[in-house]
Amino acid sequence: MVDNETGATAGEDEPKRMAIICWSNDLDRVWPVMILATTGAASGLEVDVFFTFWGLRVLQKNNQRVTGKNWMQKAESLVDRGGTDHLKLSKVHFAGAGTSMIKMLAKQHKVASVTELMEMAIDVGVRLHPCQMTMDLYGLSTSDFIDGLQPTLGAASFIDMAAKADIQLFI
Amino acid sequence: MVDNETGATAGEDEPKRMAIICWSNDLDRVWPVMILATTGAASGLEVDVFFTFWGLRVLQKNNQRVTGKNWMQKAESLVDRGGTDHLKLSKVHFAGAGTSMIKMLAKQHKVASVTELMEMAIDVGVRLHPCQMTMDLYGLSTSDFIDGLQPTLGAASFIDMAAKADIQLFI
Amino acid sequence: MVDNETGATAGEDEPKRMAIICWSNDLDRVWPVMILATTGAASGLEVDVFFTFWGLRVLQKNNQRVTGKNWMQKAESLVDRGGTDHLKLSKVHFAGAGTSMIKMLAKQHKVASVTELMEMAIDVGVRLHPCQMTMDLYGLSTSDFIDGLQPTLGAASFIDMAAKADIQLFI
Repeated sequence: MVDNETGATAGEDEPKRMAIICWSNDLDRVWPVMILATTGAASGLEVDVFFTFWGLRVLQKNNQRVTGKNWMQKAESLVDRGGTDHLKLSKVHFAGAGTSMIKMLAKQHKVASVTELMEMAIDVGVRLHPCQMTMDLYGLSTSDFIDGLQPTLGAASFIDMAAKADIQLFI
Repeated sequence: MVDNETGATAGEDEPKRMAIICWSNDLDRVWPVMILATTGAASGLEVDVFFTFWGLRVLQKNNQRVTGKNWMQKAESLVDRGGTDHLKLSKVHFAGAGTSMIKMLAKQHKVASVTELMEMAIDVGVRLHPCQMTMDLYGLSTSDFIDGLQPTLGAASFIDMAAKADIQLFI
Repeated sequence: MVDNETGATAGEDEPKRMAIICWSNDLDRVWPVMILATTGAASGLEVDVFFTFWGLRVLQKNNQRVTGKNWMQKAESLVDRGGTDHLKLSKVHFAGAGTSMIKMLAKQHKVASVTELMEMAIDVGVRLHPCQMTMDLYGLSTSDFIDGLQPTLGAASFIDMAAKADIQLFI
């Protein structure tokens, strides 16, 4: 969890911190989130990622098809499928072929997939926080999510974390 | 206004600061801007929000239909209607029904609307700055905007503010 | 290059620093990147911009039509043309006329174009870093890029720079 003793003017001997807001579930935005998070953690930074709005869907289990409690939430979950295996590019290229092409290129060049980076992130100690308010909106519960996450968080707690971090990014 | 005596290495007894660039007028981006701004201010942070590019439209009065001085500016104002009541999601879901569905879900879960958050922001002292350059591009004048804003600002002044802040976000 | 002696708690007499991730090649995102970078540098900040993902295309020479080594990379380069002269708005307005209209408005109001801002950036010492990983994905080499760039960079080096900066933005 967050070390509340550390202020913004932390000395050089304390680890640097990065706080990222993962707002999107577009493949081309989640990829940099996960690359920055895992690279940061591997370089010795303490990394917190707050998954909110569309980004909350990234934490969903890949085999969880329909989620939500009422019909609107269920309908939304069908058009906006969650889970790292199901993310799509924000730009539609080649009549929709763009997502699979980018994945093929990444594989050729040994760039880890978002699913692999997510596992890696948990392994190297990146703290992944689901946004409580978005969970309520989507009707999601923690059982819809992958394992290894931090407890759910509100905006105020995230701002508190971010204010102590050396790097803050909204992606 | 901004306290120019405060440096980047502000002590623990001074309030933390957050500087947000609101670049978009998509509902799903303006919402986090306003949630972060109001939550931050409620938690004791000093918050500045710089409304620029598409984001400037957020500050427009809801009942102001056509704006601008020349035909291009007037035409742009018609396709990209300003004001917090008229923002739309960046993703088109359900043949355009997404925006109203998200608003209904938010209402059910007592998440404040962007219009309500805007009023709240002004009440709790969030400083809302319109970008001068974008005003010129759009042909907007301060009479097109809601009340309670700060004087217009240029990029250099905003950068100066941001460099003194503890959190900077481009949203 | 980056001064490695400078910590996060740099004194008031050292120049402030801004680290920007230019992730997009949409005209409406690259414009603020370049305005913030040049304005920041003109105000005395040290500015680093990391061009990654779609953003890498911004650094491509305007007269370089096809790039890449295999057919996928070549096909991608055709649909997503690189170079500052060829950027397009993320929002399609007026049946595609939006990009040229915004450029006309900018010209009328003497807002520098992205191409002009890019030259200006190099002149005022903004450090422009191409992302190595994205170069590999796209099959781009430094000969595809404009002159005046910094050596290619990986995510870890950029995070290191960003952690020392006073302002970090993902745009």
